[in-house]
Amino acid sequence: MTKKIAILPGDGIGREVTAEAVKLIHVVAEAHGERWSLEEGLIGGSAYDATGNPLPEETVRLCRAADAVLLGAVGGPKWDQLPGDRRPEAGLLGIRKALEVFANLRPIQTWPGLLAASPLKRELVEGVDFIIVRELTGGLYFGEPKARLNGGEAVVDTLHYTRDEIRRVVRVAFDLAKSRRGRLTSVDKANVLESSRVWREVVEEVAADYPGVTVEHLLVDNAAMQIVTRPKTFDVIVTENMFGDILSDEAAVITGSIGMLPSASLGEKGPGLYEPVHGSAPDIAGQGLANPLATFLSVALMMRHSLQLPHAADAIEQAVYGVIERGVRTRDLARAGEAFVKTAEVSAMVCEDV
Amino acid sequence: MTKKIAILPGDGIGREVTAEAVKLIHVVAEAHGERWSLEEGLIGGSAYDATGNPLPEETVRLCRAADAVLLGAVGGPKWDQLPGDRRPEAGLLGIRKALEVFANLRPIQTWPGLLAASPLKRELVEGVDFIIVRELTGGLYFGEPKARLNGGEAVVDTLHYTRDEIRRVVRVAFDLAKSRRGRLTSVDKANVLESSRVWREVVEEVAADYPGVTVEHLLVDNAAMQIVTRPKTFDVIVTENMFGDILSDEAAVITGSIGMLPSASLGEKGPGLYEPVHGSAPDIAGQGLANPLATFLSVALMMRHSLQLPHAADAIEQAVYGVIERGVRTRDLARAGEAFVKTAEVSAMVCEDV
Ligand SMILES: CC(C)[C@H](C(=O)O)[C@@H](O)C(=O)O
Ligand SMILES: CC(C)[C@H](C(=O)O)[C@@H](O)C(=O)O
Repeated sequence: MTKKIAILPGDGIGREVTAEAVKLIHVVAEAHGERWSLEEGLIGGSAYDATGNPLPEETVRLCRAADAVLLGAVGGPKWDQLPGDRRPEAGLLGIRKALEVFANLRPIQTWPGLLAASPLKRELVEGVDFIIVRELTGGLYFGEPKARLNGGEAVVDTLHYTRDEIRRVVRVAFDLAKSRRGRLTSVDKANVLESSRVWREVVEEVAADYPGVTVEHLLVDNAAMQIVTRPKTFDVIVTENMFGDILSDEAAVITGSIGMLPSASLGEKGPGLYEPVHGSAPDIAGQGLANPLATFLSVALMMRHSLQLPHAADAIEQAVYGVIERGVRTRDLARAGEAFVKTAEVSAMVCEDV
Repeated sequence: MTKKIAILPGDGIGREVTAEAVKLIHVVAEAHGERWSLEEGLIGGSAYDATGNPLPEETVRLCRAADAVLLGAVGGPKWDQLPGDRRPEAGLLGIRKALEVFANLRPIQTWPGLLAASPLKRELVEGVDFIIVRELTGGLYFGEPKARLNGGEAVVDTLHYTRDEIRRVVRVAFDLAKSRRGRLTSVDKANVLESSRVWREVVEEVAADYPGVTVEHLLVDNAAMQIVTRPKTFDVIVTENMFGDILSDEAAVITGSIGMLPSASLGEKGPGLYEPVHGSAPDIAGQGLANPLATFLSVALMMRHSLQLPHAADAIEQAVYGVIERGVRTRDLARAGEAFVKTAEVSAMVCEDV
C-alpha cells in the first residue's frame, strides 16, 4: 500500500522550508524505490485566514489518515491579537492532541563546523549529544479549568496528569536511554508540585524494568543550570510539557545552530508529527533566506521512526552533515561578513548528495 | 526604637554563612552608630528535627515582629523523604507566604575578576547587569487544588493569580526599571496560558503609568534562549513564580559565580526577607568551605531596602568587591589548583574593610 505523508506548511518560513522538504522527499523516494502520496493541509494563521479556523477538520482527517505528518511552523504578528482558541498556536496544540503524539523528541547535537556560533565556551559544547523527551499532550497546556474567574479579577490554568500519561512518555525515554548511553535524567519540581511527586514515583516504578539505565532526578531550576554548565554529561532528559518547552529551547540555543534542530512527536499508534524546532520567523519570511536543514533533519527522523527506512534517514543526515562540513552556510549560520546561500541553493546541494 | 533583625540560619551551609553575616551586621552597626536587636529562629530541616514542623509558629511570630529577616538556606537529603508539608522547603514557602513578600528581586551581575568561570564566552557576559523580579507568593506554588485524584491515578496543581497579585509585583518591576535603565522585559506564555494573557494585559495597563519605561514581552521559552544569547541587553525582567524560579537560576549560572548572588523578597509592608541564591550545599556543610559573600550582599540589600541605610549597603558591596578584586577566592570560586580561603577568613577580610 502506498504510504501517505501529510504536509502542513503553516506560516512564514514554514512554507518555504516545507516546499524544499517536499523536493527532498521526492528525491529520497526515487533513490529508495519508494512511492509515497503527498498531500498538503492547512494549519495555523494561514488556515485561519482561509477558513476562520487554525485547525480545519479536514486537516485533522488528512493527518489521521497519513503515515507521517511534516509540519513547517505556525504563527506571526498578524494573528497575535486573536482570542486564544483562534490563534495559530491553537492549531499546533490541536493537531498534537488530535494525533495524541505525547512524546516530543528533541535531539540536541552540536556540529563541529558550527561551534563558533555557540554562546558557550567551546570545551563545554564540543561533542554535546543528548535528547530531550518532552511530554506533549498533557500538563498546563491542556488541563481544565483554564479560565478567568470572578468577572475577570482572577485566572486559573491547570496542571493535570494521569499516571498513565506519565508512564507512557517515561517508557519512551527509558527505551531511548537503553538504546543510547544508558543515562536518564528526569526533571521535575518535586519539592513544590504534587504532580512532580507523582512524576518521580512513576519514573522510579518504570526504572525497575530497566536495570541497565542509570536514573538521575533533577529539580527544574537546577536542570536549567546544568544544561548550561555540563551539557555534555546528558544522554536522555525526560520531563513534563511546560518544563520541556523551556528546557528544550534553552538546550537548543547552546548548540549555536537552532536552524539545524529537528523534532519528532510520537504516539502509541498513528502517524508521527515531524517539525523543525525553529519558528515561523516572520521577519525573514518570503525572502528565500530560511534555513531548510532542520526540516530536512526532521524528514530524516520521519524516515527512521514512521517509514521504517533507517538507510534513508542516514543518507539525509550524511548529506546535511557533508554540506555543513564543506562550509556552506545559510544566513542564520553565517558570521558577520561571511557569504551565505539561499534556501533553494542549500536545498539543491543536499538533494544532490542524498 | 531599636530595630529588630530575625536570623533564620536553616540547614547545611545556611548555618555557617548566617553566622558570619551576624558578625558583619555587628560591625556595620558599630560603624554606623546603630543598635539592632538580633534574634535567631528555626526553619527548615533543623526546625523539623527540633519541633516536628519546618516552620514553627514561634518563627513566624519572630519574623512578623522584625524589621528584616535574614535566611541562610534550607533542605538536605536527610529530609527528602518527608511528606510535602513537612519538608524543609515547606518552611521556606510558608515564611514567604506568611510575610507576603511577593516580589523576589534577584540582581544578576558579573564580576570582572570572576568572568573566567562563566560557561559563556567572555564578550557575552562581561558587564551583564540586570535584575529579575519574580512573583513569589502566587501561581503554581500555592494554587489549590494541589492534590491526587481518582485514588491516586491522577494529580493536579493549580496556577492561580488575581489581577491584584500581578499588578503589585509588576509595579515593583516598573519602579525598578524607572530607577535604572528604563527597560522592562515581561516574560509569560501568552500563546498557551490564560493566566499569561491576563499577566500581559496587566503589564500593558501598568505601563500607561510609566511612559519612560520601554516594555518588551517575551515568551518564556524564548526568554530561556535570550538569557543565554544576549544577557547584556536586559535591565529588569519580571515574571510569575515558576518561570521566575527557572529563569533566575539559569541567569545566575551564566555569571559563573552563583556563590556571589544575593536576593531580596519584599512585600507591601512588613519585613523584607533576604537570602543568598545558593542552596544548603549539604556536600560541603560543616567544613568551613562555604562562600558567605552572597549572604553578605543580601545583608547589603537589607540595609538598602529595609533599614534605610544606603551608605551601609554601599560599604558592604565595596568591601566585597575589593576582596574579590584583590584575588581572594573561596573554594567555589577557585579554579583547579588555585589557592582558596575558608569561610571565616574571607568573612574577616570583608568585616575589616567595611
Ligand atoms: C508555539 C508554541 C505553542 C509551542 C509550544 O509551546 O509547545 C512551541 O513553543 C514549541 O515548543 O513547539
Ligand atoms: C527550595 C525551593 C522551594 C525554592 C523555590 O522553588 O522557590 C528555591 O528553588 C528558590 O528559588 O528559592
